[in-house]
Amino acid sequence: RMVEDWNNFLVPYQQAVDELKVKLRGMRTQFMRTSGVSPIEFVTGRVKPVDSITEKMVRRQVDESRIEQDMQDIAGVRVMCQFVEDIYTVVDLLRKRTDMTIIEERDYVENEKPSGYRSYHIVVEYPVQMMNGQKKILAEIQVRTLEMNFWATIEHALNYKFDGEFPEDLRKRLKIASVKSYELDKEMSDIKKEIMKSQTK
Amino acid sequence: RMVEDWNNFLVPYQQAVDELKVKLRGMRTQFMRTSGVSPIEFVTGRVKPVDSITEKMVRRQVDESRIEQDMQDIAGVRVMCQFVEDIYTVVDLLRKRTDMTIIEERDYVENEKPSGYRSYHIVVEYPVQMMNGQKKILAEIQVRTLEMNFWATIEHALNYKFDGEFPEDLRKRLKIASVKSYELDKEMSDIKKEIMKSQTK
Amino acid sequence: RMVEDWNNFLVPYQQAVDELKVKLRGMRTQFMRTSGVSPIEFVTGRVKPVDSITEKMVRRQVDESRIEQDMQDIAGVRVMCQFVEDIYTVVDLLRKRTDMTIIEERDYVENEKPSGYRSYHIVVEYPVQMMNGQKKILAEIQVRTLEMNFWATIEHALNYKFDGEFPEDLRKRLKIASVKSYELDKEMSDIKKEIMKSQTK
Amino acid sequence: RMVEDWNNFLVPYQQAVDELKVKLRGMRTQFMRTSGVSPIEFVTGRVKPVDSITEKMVRRQVDESRIEQDMQDIAGVRVMCQFVEDIYTVVDLLRKRTDMTIIEERDYVENEKPSGYRSYHIVVEYPVQMMNGQKKILAEIQVRTLEMNFWATIEHALNYKFDGEFPEDLRKRLKIASVKSYELDKEMSDIKKEIMKSQTK
Repeated sequence: RMVEDWNNFLVPYQQAVDELKVKLRGMRTQFMRTSGVSPIEFVTGRVKPVDSITEKMVRRQVDESRIEQDMQDIAGVRVMCQFVEDIYTVVDLLRKRTDMTIIEERDYVENEKPSGYRSYHIVVEYPVQMMNGQKKILAEIQVRTLEMNFWATIEHALNYKFDGEFPEDLRKRLKIASVKSYELDKEMSDIKKEIMKSQTK
Repeated sequence: RMVEDWNNFLVPYQQAVDELKVKLRGMRTQFMRTSGVSPIEFVTGRVKPVDSITEKMVRRQVDESRIEQDMQDIAGVRVMCQFVEDIYTVVDLLRKRTDMTIIEERDYVENEKPSGYRSYHIVVEYPVQMMNGQKKILAEIQVRTLEMNFWATIEHALNYKFDGEFPEDLRKRLKIASVKSYELDKEMSDIKKEIMKSQTK
Repeated sequence: RMVEDWNNFLVPYQQAVDELKVKLRGMRTQFMRTSGVSPIEFVTGRVKPVDSITEKMVRRQVDESRIEQDMQDIAGVRVMCQFVEDIYTVVDLLRKRTDMTIIEERDYVENEKPSGYRSYHIVVEYPVQMMNGQKKILAEIQVRTLEMNFWATIEHALNYKFDGEFPEDLRKRLKIASVKSYELDKEMSDIKKEIMKSQTK
Repeated sequence: RMVEDWNNFLVPYQQAVDELKVKLRGMRTQFMRTSGVSPIEFVTGRVKPVDSITEKMVRRQVDESRIEQDMQDIAGVRVMCQFVEDIYTVVDLLRKRTDMTIIEERDYVENEKPSGYRSYHIVVEYPVQMMNGQKKILAEIQVRTLEMNFWATIEHALNYKFDGEFPEDLRKRLKIASVKSYELDKEMSDIKKEIMKSQTK
């Protein structure tokens, strides 16, 4: 495909990202209005850049005719939470929505990736209205704590900057950092629960 | 109702406005990508301010229990077009969408209001996902040309500034301006059609 | 230059546009808060697309080494007003600002272009902070009424769509439309003044 | 002061926040364009809510006549970084800017607050253009890592939710979490430096 084609191809994906961002940010607003606190801290989104798409197509041997079905993260939205348990509150709310259909869920929170990466991934089918009718798009929603986002952001930055090529012992240290990071997440949840207990006595 | 209540009451309306703006702006993007021109020039939106709502409730004797059904413009979105015929292109596209249901259409383009006001009004039922499930909201979409927007903006500003109280002869001049304004709209459409004809010869 | 270079070249221009939009929209906010009405209706901005820049360089024989000084509209901001007199209110406020320096003013409101185009153009020198220090950028601020914007938008769309090539008699009709359009602008100002007079009697 | 007055009082502060956000986000854009990585991950901003201002006035015995000079965080902007060393890169860039004047710096990164809170605080004097001339506003820029933001966000949420009243032992656990969190920040910097060393061998 030429760049011109890619631009057209990505229009519904950009639309899905824009709509999902507005919808998930709206969930935060509702929580803040109702209770002053929200399981959603902030929401970001992006369409996968063309060079990342083509690189992934080669790497995973995805044929052009299969992109729409096989690449689930062209439209990507990320939801950041304060506490680990908030992730599941958000996931539950996503399951109840009638404006998208969940296709797949992968719990990398409890079952982290070998690298140490943690997040909850949900692939949804989301309908966008195009000029020639409705089109269903796959989009990936990643739900994670601020702490998981800290680790994932830095791991991604290091991989990007050093092209994924760095010594095995440093990969191990990154993974150990991920374990400590998750312990911090759980400690914070614990502290919160203890405070709640101390209040209700 | 106290202000606190109003804030909660308006949450789904704000959500509907935010989503509709993103969706209608997406229609413009699609047109620009496909053909470099768009019947939609720009899109604005707003939730009706509380004081305007309460003022209208008194004026039209709308009971609090009937606001959701009887006040159709609490959520309002406005679509500005270049040419009069673009209005109907936009209206047709709105009719085809499956993410909202048209409840009512009022063609103030061909049948202007006594004041001289012109616009195409569509009331839609639009579903928003709230924490406790889906909620259907009424929203008003106004479609108008830049020229109709010029007249309506100034008429509204004069009414606002002078509290709707100004001499009958000035009302008449405003209305005559509206007629001239509409003639300009039609002349622009004519010029466009003539250019198109001259091109295809 | 290669596209890569253009992207870098345009960074300070995009920055200037973003800052000027926030600043001029802030002027509107101030007016609305203070008096409920504003001479500024809305503000838009854009960086000139690369193909338009290179096309203009060829047409006007601007050498690459002279772009920064000779092309004054790479960064462009547009301010839309309700009434013709509001244009001069905005221009006066721009003259008083200490965060930009006016380099040139061209009053195409009273002295329209041969095509019939009307707007007030101000070229400013605007400082942006780059990583390696301050950089002064030229930017063009166009101030016009909603009505002038109506005419200019359609004239631009016709020129774009038909590549600037359409019969002389249609150019004349466009120009006559511009005259009528300006008469409408003046009639609206007149009506406003008459209302004000009728109020203070 | 009545709410009306507060709204007017806060206009220049909101303007300062809006401008500073655009400016600091522009710094990120510059880094990304130049090198594909940025010491700035994201930027947020807010005007202090009126009830927080009045609560702080009472608590710190700030007289109304002294708010502008004595309350330095009415306009607040927050810059999130990936690595601890990025904080100082950002601080250096802020020091070089000519569009704001640094009034005070407080390094809570190396000298954390008793609670365990870490961030670099910079108070700047920032000029905004108001209708009646330039006005200098105090604004606080907080620079912190994603990790410091994780801890501060949760500590703030717990204080907010439980009104600052929770047992001393839980305060201690929060503080220990802060120490571990800072160790993670330093470990991530270490890993980065080791990778860089391994690359240049």
